[in-house]
Amino acid sequence: MNTYKDKYSKDVSSFFRSPVRDIFKKVDLNAIYSFAGGYPSAETFPMEDIRNTMSLVIDKYGGKAFQYGATQGVTELREAVAKRCGVPVERVQITSSSQQGIDVCTRVLVDPGDVILTSSPSYLGALQSFKSYRADVRGVSHCKDLDAFRQAYESEIAKVQAEGKKIKFLYMIPDFQNPSGESLTLEERQMLVALAQKYDFLIVEDSPYRELRYEGDHIPSLYSLDPDRVIYLGSFSKIFAPGFRLGWAIAHPDLLDKIYVCKQSLDLCPPVFDQYVAAEFLESGKLDENLLKTIALYKGKRDLLLSLLEEYMPEGVSWTHPEGGLFLFLTMPEGFDAVAFYDKSLSAGVAYVAGEFFHPDRSGKNTMRMNFSFMTPEKITEGVKLLAELLKDEIL
Amino acid sequence: MNTYKDKYSKDVSSFFRSPVRDIFKKVDLNAIYSFAGGYPSAETFPMEDIRNTMSLVIDKYGGKAFQYGATQGVTELREAVAKRCGVPVERVQITSSSQQGIDVCTRVLVDPGDVILTSSPSYLGALQSFKSYRADVRGVSHCKDLDAFRQAYESEIAKVQAEGKKIKFLYMIPDFQNPSGESLTLEERQMLVALAQKYDFLIVEDSPYRELRYEGDHIPSLYSLDPDRVIYLGSFSKIFAPGFRLGWAIAHPDLLDKIYVCKQSLDLCPPVFDQYVAAEFLESGKLDENLLKTIALYKGKRDLLLSLLEEYMPEGVSWTHPEGGLFLFLTMPEGFDAVAFYDKSLSAGVAYVAGEFFHPDRSGKNTMRMNFSFMTPEKITEGVKLLAELLKDEIL
Repeated sequence: MNTYKDKYSKDVSSFFRSPVRDIFKKVDLNAIYSFAGGYPSAETFPMEDIRNTMSLVIDKYGGKAFQYGATQGVTELREAVAKRCGVPVERVQITSSSQQGIDVCTRVLVDPGDVILTSSPSYLGALQSFKSYRADVRGVSHCKDLDAFRQAYESEIAKVQAEGKKIKFLYMIPDFQNPSGESLTLEERQMLVALAQKYDFLIVEDSPYRELRYEGDHIPSLYSLDPDRVIYLGSFSKIFAPGFRLGWAIAHPDLLDKIYVCKQSLDLCPPVFDQYVAAEFLESGKLDENLLKTIALYKGKRDLLLSLLEEYMPEGVSWTHPEGGLFLFLTMPEGFDAVAFYDKSLSAGVAYVAGEFFHPDRSGKNTMRMNFSFMTPEKITEGVKLLAELLKDEIL
Repeated sequence: MNTYKDKYSKDVSSFFRSPVRDIFKKVDLNAIYSFAGGYPSAETFPMEDIRNTMSLVIDKYGGKAFQYGATQGVTELREAVAKRCGVPVERVQITSSSQQGIDVCTRVLVDPGDVILTSSPSYLGALQSFKSYRADVRGVSHCKDLDAFRQAYESEIAKVQAEGKKIKFLYMIPDFQNPSGESLTLEERQMLVALAQKYDFLIVEDSPYRELRYEGDHIPSLYSLDPDRVIYLGSFSKIFAPGFRLGWAIAHPDLLDKIYVCKQSLDLCPPVFDQYVAAEFLESGKLDENLLKTIALYKGKRDLLLSLLEEYMPEGVSWTHPEGGLFLFLTMPEGFDAVAFYDKSLSAGVAYVAGEFFHPDRSGKNTMRMNFSFMTPEKITEGVKLLAELLKDEIL
């Protein structure tokens, strides 16, 4: 009955399946070598602390923890996030996952045909959401040279203006970007904020990995460079547990009010019990304790992956050296097709995400994203050896 | 900086604040007599059972309960819902609240200008979501006479066709409707399904209260009358706890696939830990045990409210007699304005929701919705006495 598929639905051009989520629908990630997802390691979930905190939340809040809550989030969590981020509480909206933060920003800001600027590559889940609102997404590739980088944006902006279109916002993941793992320098951040001010558009700063830094110093957030022009999106998924589906948005109160009204009809409020658990975790310092362990664990896995790539990858394969986060990005020789190669790789037991899915213009066919947080060191080692063998056969 | 309010946002006509949620933002419901919200009574939350079930979930599922989950929902909960509703599991999608179910149906089905048929009055949160997608919402008032009722729909449908517009779906709450508390008869349900078949549109059946029946027999759902044409939305909020933000959608797999793809970019997956807790509650029979207690409690509160209205309400005020659910609907004499009266009422300590907010055409100015699930019998009694006094001064 394929009629049902499209007959009643709206303009199908706005539907864009996530190849990543579809992988998870079909394959048990624990049964293969998966470099595919952005999954934290289950070792990092402080189960006993969570069990005790849940019991404590039931004692402390009683029925309130299971009742409907405020659309903007429960006060205790909003205040804990405000304190952690050093912003006034009226600038904090709790979201039901930072993916919802991305989606809701697009929903309140973007009319069909409006332009969203982003890096190329950029986060697949964001591109998927942008597309669902029929935004005109323009990707700009990174240039090491600052002036060339600015020029690349200036010329894209000029194109948009020539077409008489409106740029609604720039979507950026400045820290340990998904998928590349790379971060923007302070100068690059200042340049982008200056462009937003010059051409008067907003910036959506997606920052789920910021606290997962394994070397180097923290770089000021885009939000800190212009708090009234930047909507900052944070997430508990990588620093606490994704199973709670909690994140936050920090923005000018007038912008937050739009998100608040939208969220009323979206899901009324974020999960209430989960919010109290997260608030207790933040306030008790348990989240920071756990974060230190997580950082140590992931740093080890990143170092392991880098050394394994060095040792086993064939000539012509290069990769990024992330200072934090969950991912690095692999580039194969020109002509390699990571999508075509995927079936062979998966049937051999190795999953990754083809880089072209992260490129708004579907370029980057010879790239792939590799996650290093999810698997054990043993599986990372076996997985890299296996992938390297497969790539050798393909490339050489 | 009011510029921020609208300058960057999309067509502001699509924003529609919920006066109900805004009440909750400003007022502590426990500090007043609140007939306003659709809140369950906190007594109905089985706290100790939940505490033990949470501990059991941690033992049974470990890290899996805190990891990302499948977009369609965790298998255990989908199977438990499928069993409870007597449908195949491939027809079940878990939603992050049934409000999200309403929103996601609209998002995948409705282009701006498409028509959504609904009852007048209808659920405010649904009207808000429909408006946010710029749907053309047409409300049809209920007629006791079946032919007149059919005629009312036929003539609205004829109007829509004459305008060359497309009806995407009929939105209905057949059981203990929000706000009226009334249910559709079997004949009325058959008539509506026949219309959907004749004019080829879908039906979204919103059914959060179906299991809260205090008298009379269950009436077949719209879904059971045409499972391929009806999307059925269920909720755990009224039978378990709203703080978990969990619901479900049951539909033809091809329609569910649209919702699945949309949900990928909406929030990736529903809260995972909460889903396992709900699944355990269903499977262990604890949910049904608790539901029986809840039904007994709410039946008592409904009976109390009906007898108090009988005793205290002035001449010219009438109300519905719901066989279940959380609400009844009050009608004051022509000329009464429940919105204008609200400030006086709230400052005296009584909250309700003005009926006009539930009418797509903003009619029903002399009506109000009263909830009877939230407050204690003592507060219901005091609240009705107070409201009756205020109404006497206003009406007589």
